[in-house]
Amino acid sequence: MIRHVAVFRFVPEFTVDQREHWMSLLRALPAQIPSLKRMSVGVDVLGGEHAHELAIVADFDDLDGLALYNRHPAHAEVLRISAPVKVSLATVDFEIPDVE
Amino acid sequence: MIRHVAVFRFVPEFTVDQREHWMSLLRALPAQIPSLKRMSVGVDVLGGEHAHELAIVADFDDLDGLALYNRHPAHAEVLRISAPVKVSLATVDFEIPDVE
Repeated sequence: MIRHVAVFRFVPEFTVDQREHWMSLLRALPAQIPSLKRMSVGVDVLGGEHAHELAIVADFDDLDGLALYNRHPAHAEVLRISAPVKVSLATVDFEIPDVE
Repeated sequence: MIRHVAVFRFVPEFTVDQREHWMSLLRALPAQIPSLKRMSVGVDVLGGEHAHELAIVADFDDLDGLALYNRHPAHAEVLRISAPVKVSLATVDFEIPDVE
């Protein structure tokens, strides 16, 4: 499997409610994108020297499944919201065993 | 539960073999640290504009479990290796449902 990790910082103007709405759209994606097997998303609760604000961890059977996700209209809608308010994004896409 | 996400970039001198060894130490941590319920770690396979090099996704029952992990000697040994070769680190610690 492929685990997609994305770590974000946003402009302060991206409010808590807007972030909650954005995360609800992400949590709704597995029902719309068959190749997306697991999706977890949340805001940082710990802070600290290296802390960013929000992370996505999404699992796919393979890189093709991740490509389908990246091209999917429902994902495009999510990007449409975050693109203008994103300050930084760090991604790592790595292989994980089929069974954790 | 708490999901700990850490995304790294390292100096080029931190070789592929050294990174593999470091990741093997991380994969061995669940057997040594009871509060660490799941650990996945891997190198980026996709690249791209926002790509960093390596990510850890580790799950704990709660923040106390994460604190135990951060203080544990076996984790300290992992940090001893990565601290001098780390270029950047981004972390997000967020809440996930007990059952994914």
